[in-house]
Amino acid sequence: MRGVVSCFSAWLAAGVLLAGVSASRQPPNVVIMLMDDMGWGDLGCNGEPNRETPNLDQMAREGLIVSSMYTAAPLCSPSRASLLTGRLPIRNGFYSNNTAGRNAYTPQNIVGGISDDEVLLPELLKERGYTSGLVGKWHLGHQPQYLPRKHGFDFWFGSPNCHFGPYMDLVTPNIPVFLNDHMLGRYYKDFPINRNQGISNMTQLYIDAAVGFINKEASKGPFFLLWAPDATHAPTYASEKYYRTSRRGRYGNAVRELDAGVGTILDALRKQGVDNNTLVVFTSDNGAALVSKQDGGSNGPFLCGKQTTFEGGMRAPGIFWWPGVISAGTTSHQVWTQMDLFSTAAQLAGVSPPQDRIYDGLPLANSFTYPQLEVPRPVFLYRGDRLMAVRRGASKIHLWTFSTPPAELQKGINYCPGAEVPNVTTPTPTDHSGRPILFNVEVDPGERYPISPSSSTYRNIVPMLLNVIREHNEKLVPGEPQLNWCDRAVMHWAPPGCETLNECLPVPESHPTLCVWPH
Amino acid sequence: MRGVVSCFSAWLAAGVLLAGVSASRQPPNVVIMLMDDMGWGDLGCNGEPNRETPNLDQMAREGLIVSSMYTAAPLCSPSRASLLTGRLPIRNGFYSNNTAGRNAYTPQNIVGGISDDEVLLPELLKERGYTSGLVGKWHLGHQPQYLPRKHGFDFWFGSPNCHFGPYMDLVTPNIPVFLNDHMLGRYYKDFPINRNQGISNMTQLYIDAAVGFINKEASKGPFFLLWAPDATHAPTYASEKYYRTSRRGRYGNAVRELDAGVGTILDALRKQGVDNNTLVVFTSDNGAALVSKQDGGSNGPFLCGKQTTFEGGMRAPGIFWWPGVISAGTTSHQVWTQMDLFSTAAQLAGVSPPQDRIYDGLPLANSFTYPQLEVPRPVFLYRGDRLMAVRRGASKIHLWTFSTPPAELQKGINYCPGAEVPNVTTPTPTDHSGRPILFNVEVDPGERYPISPSSSTYRNIVPMLLNVIREHNEKLVPGEPQLNWCDRAVMHWAPPGCETLNECLPVPESHPTLCVWPH
Repeated sequence: MRGVVSCFSAWLAAGVLLAGVSASRQPPNVVIMLMDDMGWGDLGCNGEPNRETPNLDQMAREGLIVSSMYTAAPLCSPSRASLLTGRLPIRNGFYSNNTAGRNAYTPQNIVGGISDDEVLLPELLKERGYTSGLVGKWHLGHQPQYLPRKHGFDFWFGSPNCHFGPYMDLVTPNIPVFLNDHMLGRYYKDFPINRNQGISNMTQLYIDAAVGFINKEASKGPFFLLWAPDATHAPTYASEKYYRTSRRGRYGNAVRELDAGVGTILDALRKQGVDNNTLVVFTSDNGAALVSKQDGGSNGPFLCGKQTTFEGGMRAPGIFWWPGVISAGTTSHQVWTQMDLFSTAAQLAGVSPPQDRIYDGLPLANSFTYPQLEVPRPVFLYRGDRLMAVRRGASKIHLWTFSTPPAELQKGINYCPGAEVPNVTTPTPTDHSGRPILFNVEVDPGERYPISPSSSTYRNIVPMLLNVIREHNEKLVPGEPQLNWCDRAVMHWAPPGCETLNECLPVPESHPTLCVWPH
Repeated sequence: MRGVVSCFSAWLAAGVLLAGVSASRQPPNVVIMLMDDMGWGDLGCNGEPNRETPNLDQMAREGLIVSSMYTAAPLCSPSRASLLTGRLPIRNGFYSNNTAGRNAYTPQNIVGGISDDEVLLPELLKERGYTSGLVGKWHLGHQPQYLPRKHGFDFWFGSPNCHFGPYMDLVTPNIPVFLNDHMLGRYYKDFPINRNQGISNMTQLYIDAAVGFINKEASKGPFFLLWAPDATHAPTYASEKYYRTSRRGRYGNAVRELDAGVGTILDALRKQGVDNNTLVVFTSDNGAALVSKQDGGSNGPFLCGKQTTFEGGMRAPGIFWWPGVISAGTTSHQVWTQMDLFSTAAQLAGVSPPQDRIYDGLPLANSFTYPQLEVPRPVFLYRGDRLMAVRRGASKIHLWTFSTPPAELQKGINYCPGAEVPNVTTPTPTDHSGRPILFNVEVDPGERYPISPSSSTYRNIVPMLLNVIREHNEKLVPGEPQLNWCDRAVMHWAPPGCETLNECLPVPESHPTLCVWPH
């Protein structure tokens, strides 16, 4: 406990310093680079053995590495909704209660999407005059009322859903690609992805759009850019220039191109002279999708992957870059969740989120100038509507465990390939709340060695964490679940703009059904 | 295959360049830092999440990272014997054939040790006037004829065997600590290690001895230093200064102290003005001992640990540092084995190993100036006397697999905790030579996804590798096994120097028995 007093003084000083920064002239620009299914272990600076990410490694050398950056959910849509709302999926409605403890997202037959009651980061930043752009995947609902420009973004180039299917299957519409409010065309048909070879120029388009947005906005006023390319989501792709350039295969080609994109975007900030006034964050929406095997990424030393609440499912890369504010080559042991990006961006902009709701994010801008600070705080790890685990400090407690259901395993789906920790990687949802499983994930990041319930460590920590959980549960008011209903009628038969392109398809009759969420 | 011609030109150029370097004035000093059971994933620069190795990370930034550095065996004695002889254990005799395919080493009741027929690196370097020092663990046999000063080392401070037991048990002598030819005292009795807390100042002594050796030799002529501290071998320890300084527990304390030692030694080279004429290599004798659980290290993304021929057992950290010759921040994809350190040191010194025997090491000094070069070569991975696997290029083929025998598992011994790859992490030795298991360990470093035998990749690569193996086997002349016989009479009852210290114990009658090697 030594150093608490001096830490507190530093904390106060940091607050004063940052208050000074944000009160002076223009608040900083914010760029969030949000990868799709890229794993913690895919970065050279995080130990990927082939070391194919020179730009990210350089970004890390010039910036701050956060090893404990948690996503708010172990898969795409709820993770992204939480980053943009600063609130857990259970609060912002990005979950389903069709089946307890199952992951849900927004396929193209989803009826729901982001609620108008939620205040998204671009909406909040607009109060301070920010212009906001989204380049890449949205995934917060695709019916017109859910699209990015209805929720604060001024610019959007990208797709409302993921590019994994349908693949010109003639009975289901391909996913459209939008420019602002209108579709420009569709994946596979108009924006080709060669799935056999893993070739597409989409990432180049997304890099160009990000640079274009920066070049346009840099001189005008503060901007927020969410760069969300999807090339590392299976089926992975890269442009011809990157074809067969990686030792890691086509997944690695995609990483190399994205890494180059990171370099290009940082260069654009430098060229515009705004690098000293721009916070850039690099992260990913969830852990690597180990189910994709060789076409998926790496979670380094962590257990399992996407879809699970083990470290491999929810610990994402975390690099912060802000020349002049963040010292080069720093590391922080602060436990972050991506919902902190919402609160921290608001803090930097000097705007306050609404006071009528609970936020899960913390304003952590002090970490940039005082990386040795560690604000103690819990991070709640949900699978669907079920609180599975909590990380606080070095400790992680599992109330429930669940890897891959047997029926899925039989189909070749496996979220924990090669891993088997007895009583931990359980193939069915297993309730440990009577005697939670405790790990020290600083000592044991692979969650292999549960701490004995008879140890003094366990007896000290578990009751404290159970209190934290009780408090969380008592205050919890679940949001209206948005991901319960599916309907073929809401698919992309006739997105806005289809008339001009002559790509409107007849809309079938509506037959809403409860979505099935097996995982 | 593009670039072969230009690569070849570069290779020639590199040869000329290096010939020029070594023909000029004094050949370079060589420092090999050989850790004990430290894992690939224990270094911040290899992705250890707590990032507690600032000196190693800096050494990597200033030098060359080799991701594929293989030990010659998955455990201590044979690995070390091979590094110093440039030859596989099956050739230099550091194996047992009591039971096929079991790991053997040199406990204090071992009768054998390094054969006089083997030419050790310090013996070879002596031809060019090198003075050689060993600081730390020897482990190549402890009877008088096997000790370091009988095999080329001019200076030795350290122990002949590992410090794990006996612990003042009154019926077995404690392991002695030597200075040159005489014991200075014994572990636990005279050189204390507090096993409850993991405290000992041995690493400080080993750092001081290394610096002392450098300071003494730097101005005299070329030197070779093998720095082989043992603090990361269970029971791990660190000095009081490092007690509770790591987030990783006592294992991490040991790593932090060793990391500081690396910084101190590099500084000593700088202070002596020999940093531009010294090759420094940082590596470890085998993968992290996962059997030690929280008191062991991390193998990052690799499968299993010490005692196995999976990547986690035999892939070690690899950092090369040589200011002025090795460019800062380079990486190489060359597949190395530690036996190459023998051949490369000889190459740099301009001495030739005897022509009457097969060497497994290659002279790879060209890698330092041309890190993009990749000399194609197989690395043979043995467990005891059995060829288990071969790595060549990106491919790794398993002829046999073996993790932990069931009888050991029941005792809590597990070399693959948390890992289970069907048909790969087999609990009994399993013969796959009829249909070898093939992995691409650049795409799949965790050895999780065997390449299908029906694939064209498999059909192209496996026959080629089987040819390589056939050639290897045809030329193989196994050395006389040194690790078959055990005898309580050879224990450290009365090491040289015990008389002065009054620490001689009565030597029991000799009853040689075949050693039992269960793993």
